[in-house]
Amino acid sequence: MAGIQYEIMETIAVISESPKGWTKELNLISWNGREPKYDLRDWAPDHEKMGKGITLTKEEVLQLKKSLENFS
Amino acid sequence: MAGIQYEIMETIAVISESPKGWTKELNLISWNGREPKYDLRDWAPDHEKMGKGITLTKEEVLQLKKSLENFS
Repeated sequence: MAGIQYEIMETIAVISESPKGWTKELNLISWNGREPKYDLRDWAPDHEKMGKGITLTKEEVLQLKKSLENFS
Repeated sequence: MAGIQYEIMETIAVISESPKGWTKELNLISWNGREPKYDLRDWAPDHEKMGKGITLTKEEVLQLKKSLENFS
């Protein structure tokens, strides 16, 4: 991920933690100083490394929330 | 993605569609015949190609749902 700068503006949720301390988090992240996006991703302890993830717009997060209303 | 086989067992949500017809979907997918996992990912029209994504356990989806309760 050389050359990629990011700033975690807000942590919405930490949805799991692995035995090695990696966490799966939904954050609001600004990548390379751009407008922040929602981001669901695995992180090493202290955010030292990042795993695979997916970025989401606010509208996508809201639609996801709505779609999960009946999920159990 | 050569060599990866998958079967979409259930589509939980289609949370957006791009102008080119790519959709962001939460599906329950079995990869290479293994136990299905929840999967949030971009897909080309007719699922011809897949974009980046992240897999989730059921517990992670439930925690995500709970965490989004106050999201607006």
